[in-house]
Amino acid sequence: MIRIGVIGCGYWGPNLVRNFHAIPEARVVACCDKEVERLQRMRALYPEVDTTTRAQDLLDAGLDAGAIATPPHTHHSLAKAFLSEGMHVLVEKPVAQSAAECIELIELAECRGTVLMVGHTFEYTAAVNLLKEIVESGEIGEVLYISSTRVNLGLFQQYVNVIWDLAPHDISIISYVLGKEPVSVNACGISHFSDGIEDVAMTTLTYEGGPMAFLHNSWIDPNKIRKMVFAGSKKMVVYDDLEVNEKIKIYDKGVEKLVCHDKQKLFEYSYRYGDVHSPVLEDFEPLGAECRHFVECITHKKTPRSDGYSGLRVVRVLEAASASLRQLGHAVNIEHPDFAEI
Amino acid sequence: MIRIGVIGCGYWGPNLVRNFHAIPEARVVACCDKEVERLQRMRALYPEVDTTTRAQDLLDAGLDAGAIATPPHTHHSLAKAFLSEGMHVLVEKPVAQSAAECIELIELAECRGTVLMVGHTFEYTAAVNLLKEIVESGEIGEVLYISSTRVNLGLFQQYVNVIWDLAPHDISIISYVLGKEPVSVNACGISHFSDGIEDVAMTTLTYEGGPMAFLHNSWIDPNKIRKMVFAGSKKMVVYDDLEVNEKIKIYDKGVEKLVCHDKQKLFEYSYRYGDVHSPVLEDFEPLGAECRHFVECITHKKTPRSDGYSGLRVVRVLEAASASLRQLGHAVNIEHPDFAEI
Amino acid sequence: MIRIGVIGCGYWGPNLVRNFHAIPEARVVACCDKEVERLQRMRALYPEVDTTTRAQDLLDAGLDAGAIATPPHTHHSLAKAFLSEGMHVLVEKPVAQSAAECIELIELAECRGTVLMVGHTFEYTAAVNLLKEIVESGEIGEVLYISSTRVNLGLFQQYVNVIWDLAPHDISIISYVLGKEPVSVNACGISHFSDGIEDVAMTTLTYEGGPMAFLHNSWIDPNKIRKMVFAGSKKMVVYDDLEVNEKIKIYDKGVEKLVCHDKQKLFEYSYRYGDVHSPVLEDFEPLGAECRHFVECITHKKTPRSDGYSGLRVVRVLEAASASLRQLGHAVNIEHPDFAEI
Amino acid sequence: MIRIGVIGCGYWGPNLVRNFHAIPEARVVACCDKEVERLQRMRALYPEVDTTTRAQDLLDAGLDAGAIATPPHTHHSLAKAFLSEGMHVLVEKPVAQSAAECIELIELAECRGTVLMVGHTFEYTAAVNLLKEIVESGEIGEVLYISSTRVNLGLFQQYVNVIWDLAPHDISIISYVLGKEPVSVNACGISHFSDGIEDVAMTTLTYEGGPMAFLHNSWIDPNKIRKMVFAGSKKMVVYDDLEVNEKIKIYDKGVEKLVCHDKQKLFEYSYRYGDVHSPVLEDFEPLGAECRHFVECITHKKTPRSDGYSGLRVVRVLEAASASLRQLGHAVNIEHPDFAEI
Repeated sequence: MIRIGVIGCGYWGPNLVRNFHAIPEARVVACCDKEVERLQRMRALYPEVDTTTRAQDLLDAGLDAGAIATPPHTHHSLAKAFLSEGMHVLVEKPVAQSAAECIELIELAECRGTVLMVGHTFEYTAAVNLLKEIVESGEIGEVLYISSTRVNLGLFQQYVNVIWDLAPHDISIISYVLGKEPVSVNACGISHFSDGIEDVAMTTLTYEGGPMAFLHNSWIDPNKIRKMVFAGSKKMVVYDDLEVNEKIKIYDKGVEKLVCHDKQKLFEYSYRYGDVHSPVLEDFEPLGAECRHFVECITHKKTPRSDGYSGLRVVRVLEAASASLRQLGHAVNIEHPDFAEI
Repeated sequence: MIRIGVIGCGYWGPNLVRNFHAIPEARVVACCDKEVERLQRMRALYPEVDTTTRAQDLLDAGLDAGAIATPPHTHHSLAKAFLSEGMHVLVEKPVAQSAAECIELIELAECRGTVLMVGHTFEYTAAVNLLKEIVESGEIGEVLYISSTRVNLGLFQQYVNVIWDLAPHDISIISYVLGKEPVSVNACGISHFSDGIEDVAMTTLTYEGGPMAFLHNSWIDPNKIRKMVFAGSKKMVVYDDLEVNEKIKIYDKGVEKLVCHDKQKLFEYSYRYGDVHSPVLEDFEPLGAECRHFVECITHKKTPRSDGYSGLRVVRVLEAASASLRQLGHAVNIEHPDFAEI
Repeated sequence: MIRIGVIGCGYWGPNLVRNFHAIPEARVVACCDKEVERLQRMRALYPEVDTTTRAQDLLDAGLDAGAIATPPHTHHSLAKAFLSEGMHVLVEKPVAQSAAECIELIELAECRGTVLMVGHTFEYTAAVNLLKEIVESGEIGEVLYISSTRVNLGLFQQYVNVIWDLAPHDISIISYVLGKEPVSVNACGISHFSDGIEDVAMTTLTYEGGPMAFLHNSWIDPNKIRKMVFAGSKKMVVYDDLEVNEKIKIYDKGVEKLVCHDKQKLFEYSYRYGDVHSPVLEDFEPLGAECRHFVECITHKKTPRSDGYSGLRVVRVLEAASASLRQLGHAVNIEHPDFAEI
Repeated sequence: MIRIGVIGCGYWGPNLVRNFHAIPEARVVACCDKEVERLQRMRALYPEVDTTTRAQDLLDAGLDAGAIATPPHTHHSLAKAFLSEGMHVLVEKPVAQSAAECIELIELAECRGTVLMVGHTFEYTAAVNLLKEIVESGEIGEVLYISSTRVNLGLFQQYVNVIWDLAPHDISIISYVLGKEPVSVNACGISHFSDGIEDVAMTTLTYEGGPMAFLHNSWIDPNKIRKMVFAGSKKMVVYDDLEVNEKIKIYDKGVEKLVCHDKQKLFEYSYRYGDVHSPVLEDFEPLGAECRHFVECITHKKTPRSDGYSGLRVVRVLEAASASLRQLGHAVNIEHPDFAEI
């Protein structure tokens, strides 16, 4: 039985508790939050769970694992404290506020032999895993470019801008699907409500040898949109996470460069318009799969799909985006773009 | 009776001829194109119109006006030749390939006292004019940011990249609606099929004192999209040009910053979710309105809505975007961002 | 404190328990179902609730009220037993399998002075109440006709056909909005999977002096649809219950008959195409409103919005539809079509 | 060279002229209409075509064929006159106002050895032909039921009701796809604007041994809809004619009856939810294919796909629908439901 403590009982924490509850090999023993009303709500739902307003109580409780769902600026210090106690850690994205902090956590987890897993929930969805399969199979050919729109009205964050809040999803999905990391990042953004906290931004990721990816993130948009386009040299895929029935659509469409013997027309393309196919997806809650994976990694001493390196790769891109924002959109290189090592 | 010659009978030229035909005060006297088959098609449709493969014939025909619908790199020299003959000119966008060329044409037209009008067709649509009215009325408050998506599969251009091909529409619409010009431009793009001809690009326009506008243009996209969002401080407008019935939707949604006395919570917003309203639009062909406006400006010696300065303002942004592309997305300032003068 | 027993813990019953739980003035004291596993699930969620497999236990428990969410053919006998004990009753639709049974229950409740309420949940939605307001205000003019599509794949019922399963929603909504009852019913249907249980049907309701309403119900449809059109003489309203953001759309469209003096053209209409407006709706769970209303009616001795007569009116239409099905679609009159009396 | 006369130059006639013009083997020699302005418009577009207000002129002109696009109540007498002259005839739907009239025309054409073709344009679309292929291939299994919605605002007809105006499309498509004719018809409708001319109607077609088809036709609807569902025992197809890119969608969904050994549960179904596939369709104007087919049938003495019998089968259903309307929806049998004989 894995004994787990959950810290942060705002929006996301209760979902973690609910999903861990459904796993026979795990038990949520304690919950922690600064706000007493939130703890009352947790007790009403789960009378057997201890609650506390002090993080230290979780550290002292002799738990096997901690799940962190607090605001982003607290992730690093809490994860560090848990790992130092020899606890396994599941931490929400972004795992930390700098690459250096991520590396510190990775090294600490390796040193203590514990699991460090990041809550890149989309890597546990049926849609993103199918997307990865499609891209890896070569069905859509070479990925030429990606565009991702993740916008909505509201849910302003206090300490992080819209890129640190929403783009981790885009970045982790794209890195997971492509299996590589961008070499440079451009970002332009604007803040309307809190000085220095961009609420709208456009981020461009450039990958060595292609593709380019455009990320549009906004907290100020009339409609909620969660949509990604992967345009390949053979086919194109649209992933619309808000579609109930046809989340993934594969368009058998493409461009072909013609060899042209007419010297007048040096240049000629043909466009292929074909069928549209939407594969059925298995229906399950991604967070459930994520929580089961965490428990399984602990039990069988496995490396999680979304491990510390995965979190590091996302944070490196976010850091570069922040630097680019400060330089008015100038391209900022990512220092160590090797995909799976520090 | 205004006697008009049309040069370029590919995709757009025949539409110009058809629309001028419907205007009693105008007559298309001659058509010119390098391809003989295109001229045959024009003669079949309009037996009374002269056709020629030599532009010089149009210059020699003693016409009142010339309409130019040839590839972009020929616009400047043809417009210059027509204006030099004292002819009024309607030239497709982009009016030229540099601001300097635009200024040369503007000065030439002023010197000869002729009309120089640019084919910014969207400024003649019911939707864009309603959008301008809505924004100018203050109904949506301050415009916080704009995003525009203009993508599709195909119609690659040989001589210009996707920004010079598609973004003139976005830029002319935004400039027309806001009544101001951006002060700097960032652009990132990638070319997959012709070296040096970007087929996918993201352009960011920064306006003095706000807003920021993001333009997504692509020739490699599975679905055709023509969609703009104007997010205001009070309301938000979505303009989807491919919607048949509800092209303009006004969302009574917004963000309000709360004054917060609780020191713990320095930061608090409220979101307003209200009605959605889609005003009915008059149904007419925008190119018809554009052609009538051209004839009217000639007849009554008026300055066209989309005059040479309007063309210049768009080209200045395109030039800056090209410079930014070469500098890997670095912000490029626009030199003379005054809205209505050289 | 109203002490409530809930019978039937399949799909709907647990929703009733959850909603009653949130009402301070009410308490679910006991649950009953034939399947033991269902009761185990209820105990896990609500440890303080008694569970039993015998309906008699609920009758003997000295409860104030009973909520019935069992299969339709059991509604009448259970409601009768509860009412006979002097309990208030909330029963799912359809309230019984014949008008006679409904009248028996109504009389019993009147005799005992208890509340008899039918679970016409849609009458408690924000959308249907707005629809009623719009129609009653005269904004859309006279209602000319109604079409309703309520189809999906699956959820076949064992004892009732698709009309008795799905059409009660359509009928109760339309009766509630119009405030009147149809005078005759036509129904055509077909059964593919269980003999005598139609899984697809089309029902036509004719109202005295108009309108006519067409109900399309099916368990065999590739897409789930929940859509109603109220076409009025002045405007038209579409209510799409599956739309997240724009459930109600008011189209300022209509037909006008022109007075025509040209004898050649005896006949002439004009069509008006105007704005589309979608009012924002308050966001709440309709079943919560329904449960609160039930408790309030008990507490303040009020007649419920969806009382026994409301259930009777729906069942009369269902009975007539069944008769019409047997007569191959022939119009079947409804005997006592007065809206609010037996 | 087939010399053709076109009678009726309102909405549809000019489309016929334009399409015949594009066929090298055919020539439109003359046009006829009662309204002089319409003829002026035709002369402007086609200066070489003769125009007349007298039908007799067409009969006297020694033409090979006549195409009839006049109001429905004139179809029979004009077709009869043309056929009597030994001319081939293409007549718009409905071919006549009674089965008897249709038979008269069929016999006349057979007697004179001329082609009699009905303008069931949808039988010449890529979408309907693919639908027919899909159904005939057995891919969707047995067709269980069909629903068709063909509604819009306006285009009221003066002499025929909405069933005679819009349902011929539904009926001809369904008969063409299924290759069989219904055995009985129910129809309910209501007229709001012209006495006796129903502007809204619901028609049910019953086929021997299944399926049933429901047709919803209206001139009073806020949105234009052209949508058919073919629900099969294995898969389901939706054909939405207003969709630009995905007109045909095949849903790999279905119902299966389980053999159930648990006596408690006599009844059990499983639902299959699978992929959605939208095959690409060739892009052409159906009327062009129809006109070419007419010319080809004349040239090669072939029987048209939509011959007189096809027109008769549609009119038999319309007649039965009218009878059912008069009998308040009672089922009306179709007398000679054999598919391909009188």
